[in-house]
Amino acid sequence: MRSLSELNIMIIIRILGFLLLIEGAFMFTGIPFSITQCNENCYSLLISGAITAFSGTIMWFFTRKHANKNLGKREGYIIVALTWVIISLFGTLPFLISGTIPKFTDAFFETISGFTTTGATILTDIESLPKGILFWRSMTHWIGGMGIIVLTVAILPVLGIGGMQLYTAEMPGPTKEKLHPRITQTAKRLWGIYVLFTILQTLLLMLGGMDLFDSLCHTFGTMATGGFSTQNASIAGYSPYIQYVIIIFMVLAGTNFTLHYLSLHGRLRKLWENEEYRYYILIMLFTGILLTVFLALLDDKPFEAAFRTAVFQVVSIVTTTGYITDDYLLWPKFLWIIIFLLMFVGGMAGSTGGGMKVMRQLLIFKNSSVELKRLIHPRAIIPVRLSGKVVPQDIIFKIMTFFLLYMIIFAFGTLVMSFTGLDFETAIGSTAATLGNIGPGIGMVGPVGNYSEIAIGGKWFLAFLMLLGRLELFTILILFSPAFWKK
Amino acid sequence: MRSLSELNIMIIIRILGFLLLIEGAFMFTGIPFSITQCNENCYSLLISGAITAFSGTIMWFFTRKHANKNLGKREGYIIVALTWVIISLFGTLPFLISGTIPKFTDAFFETISGFTTTGATILTDIESLPKGILFWRSMTHWIGGMGIIVLTVAILPVLGIGGMQLYTAEMPGPTKEKLHPRITQTAKRLWGIYVLFTILQTLLLMLGGMDLFDSLCHTFGTMATGGFSTQNASIAGYSPYIQYVIIIFMVLAGTNFTLHYLSLHGRLRKLWENEEYRYYILIMLFTGILLTVFLALLDDKPFEAAFRTAVFQVVSIVTTTGYITDDYLLWPKFLWIIIFLLMFVGGMAGSTGGGMKVMRQLLIFKNSSVELKRLIHPRAIIPVRLSGKVVPQDIIFKIMTFFLLYMIIFAFGTLVMSFTGLDFETAIGSTAATLGNIGPGIGMVGPVGNYSEIAIGGKWFLAFLMLLGRLELFTILILFSPAFWKK
Repeated sequence: MRSLSELNIMIIIRILGFLLLIEGAFMFTGIPFSITQCNENCYSLLISGAITAFSGTIMWFFTRKHANKNLGKREGYIIVALTWVIISLFGTLPFLISGTIPKFTDAFFETISGFTTTGATILTDIESLPKGILFWRSMTHWIGGMGIIVLTVAILPVLGIGGMQLYTAEMPGPTKEKLHPRITQTAKRLWGIYVLFTILQTLLLMLGGMDLFDSLCHTFGTMATGGFSTQNASIAGYSPYIQYVIIIFMVLAGTNFTLHYLSLHGRLRKLWENEEYRYYILIMLFTGILLTVFLALLDDKPFEAAFRTAVFQVVSIVTTTGYITDDYLLWPKFLWIIIFLLMFVGGMAGSTGGGMKVMRQLLIFKNSSVELKRLIHPRAIIPVRLSGKVVPQDIIFKIMTFFLLYMIIFAFGTLVMSFTGLDFETAIGSTAATLGNIGPGIGMVGPVGNYSEIAIGGKWFLAFLMLLGRLELFTILILFSPAFWKK
Repeated sequence: MRSLSELNIMIIIRILGFLLLIEGAFMFTGIPFSITQCNENCYSLLISGAITAFSGTIMWFFTRKHANKNLGKREGYIIVALTWVIISLFGTLPFLISGTIPKFTDAFFETISGFTTTGATILTDIESLPKGILFWRSMTHWIGGMGIIVLTVAILPVLGIGGMQLYTAEMPGPTKEKLHPRITQTAKRLWGIYVLFTILQTLLLMLGGMDLFDSLCHTFGTMATGGFSTQNASIAGYSPYIQYVIIIFMVLAGTNFTLHYLSLHGRLRKLWENEEYRYYILIMLFTGILLTVFLALLDDKPFEAAFRTAVFQVVSIVTTTGYITDDYLLWPKFLWIIIFLLMFVGGMAGSTGGGMKVMRQLLIFKNSSVELKRLIHPRAIIPVRLSGKVVPQDIIFKIMTFFLLYMIIFAFGTLVMSFTGLDFETAIGSTAATLGNIGPGIGMVGPVGNYSEIAIGGKWFLAFLMLLGRLELFTILILFSPAFWKK
């Protein structure tokens, strides 16, 4: 008999198999778009989907005896980490088979960049790719976004990572040791909102004159806070109307989906009562207006254009989407340094946004100011409050640990990337932009640059950073801890 | 009757007066070196010293009725912050009166850079200054170093700042609410060691052929981990013997002086048992050897020269001294990025070194790794240990708060400095180098650069950062908290 504490490998294989089956099905959805330009690469999506779904089916079928086995925390960690790796491995098939991205390193970089909703690309001429392949590329974002909603709202709180416990209080969800009980229910509700917003944005973009294909691709990139576009110029070539639509949906995608759920169920007041939400909106508003003023004065732009340019870039970076309408590296230095600092904000927890998350920033600022009061009144117990409620000290502790680990990895990452031969700004920029799941950074990998010139080792390292950042660091790091593998 | 909780301004003035009296006396010590080159500026030290000492005497005399009043924590904070500001204000006199640094902003920058043991200079041709003035310039380091030893070992632990409580356990010292009881005793012991090392280093430098003047100035710069030199080329022009002597004394100056006290009293084993000390030495050894290998291979230097160059720069940056023998910005990029990252290490707490301090880094790394174990065993209480002893969670909490505040100030500082028109690297470099009390940074303020080209506003801001960094952030920030000024 297998003891309960032993790792249940069969159930891991079974769940991964199920997810591959779904991935394969998603690959087929791009086929209608590839039919119109059918050439020798026409069948790449069909073949890739078939291989992926077939592999999934085999894994699912041969583990059917283990369907009702218990799923513990350790299995949870392994499944989460392996999911992103395995769907990215199979996700490279359309690129490789079609020959659009012939090198495996590049294909893997592009795919994991998609699934982690990063949006960093190695492509130099996006528009030359067949539509079916571009559709799959944007689809990886959308799937990744779905995954991340479940992960942060339903799974990470149970695993106790980096202050995510704060969310279990907000939403009826699983609080027990075992993972599966209410995940399905929570996931269904939030996915419903995700799909609703996706339909809404697609329609609004089509209203602005975009065709169905471009509308869907850009909606996928927006809702997942991903950033893959079908155009070499990202969003710069589109009308102001389109740009405003994307701004609004980037803000929505960077918002905690639990808040959307509550708002849509009549509790709109909950939104503004939520301190994290207020802070999230105010950061973007404040820096947006600040940049507007400077761009209007220094670049001599008309006010509306300055406002749109400023707010688009700010919202895109804060929500970690990474779409752009202007090359911020051409702005005066201190303006793009503001953009660079915004890369460390991140969306709200429980959104599809990456990065450190607004909530963590807010609590760390609050704790720093409370610490001064504690020094003045050393005997008083002065707690940190969020939306009026006391935040337990041990959660602040976990959040600070997360934040510091993020900074340590950022520093170490910069060093590694500079070792691959990059200049200082590109090393810093590529690390911040991948760890924060943003996409464009500074230096060579800025808004009009891309990741094609990074060395092979550097690409694999950045892919690892995307995964680390997307899975809230600990989910990956814990797998490197010897204690994890002991009974 | 004045209530006990009311701020006792008289005692603050009295103590500051006493310190000015001492400062004036120290100014006179440079006179012997100025006699040999007596010109129209000859009397500047004499006049400055007289003004300073006279001002101090007046402050001291007119508050004589308040000599035995109680000194509370609030007065403690104010005295600490004001001390560095006021002695820096009076410390500008020799530069202003002699006309060697005619602008007040520059003179204040240079003086506070001295007293905070930073070593950032606005001078472009150091060697053109009269000896008496250079002696005073180096003397500000030595006085600042004396001040910081008392501050970190005797005063900050009582104020409860950033984990400094860890030191009260090591050394018999004040643990009560009131400040004065045993400060004198602790200070005398540690100052004894400081003076002893100063004499020793001066003699060893003279043995290497340096004259008394240069030996004293460089010893002041070393023992205080300051970095002001009398030469434009810093230490680059001196013999290997001199460079090794300075390396050794930089390491000593960056070590907790309490450990020196214990070692000199026969408890040498205490040194290696101290985990912070081991970590401090190992960081320098590891990066030193790493850089040696790269410099030997890439720069094609002979092994001894590569080793000396690598270790000198590493030790100088880690201890926050800032002397240099080579322009590390000319090294391959990833090597100077290592140097840049070392700027965030800092010396040991209780040394004259600035920065974040080795102890804080060590505890944060330990806590991060322990946090992974806590995730795996959520019900177990797993403490962080330092030198085998459990470190209370609330001290780790304070240390993390300190670290995060440091990073926030660093990010904000970079933004402010880029606003003054600096490029990205110089903005980052000047902020890191002043906040960490190092001196040379990267970019325009690198090893062969200086701070002369920084805008006036930027110089005042950097002066503020030096003060913030030197006084462990909270001592200054608390004065901006409204709660501090309420009864």
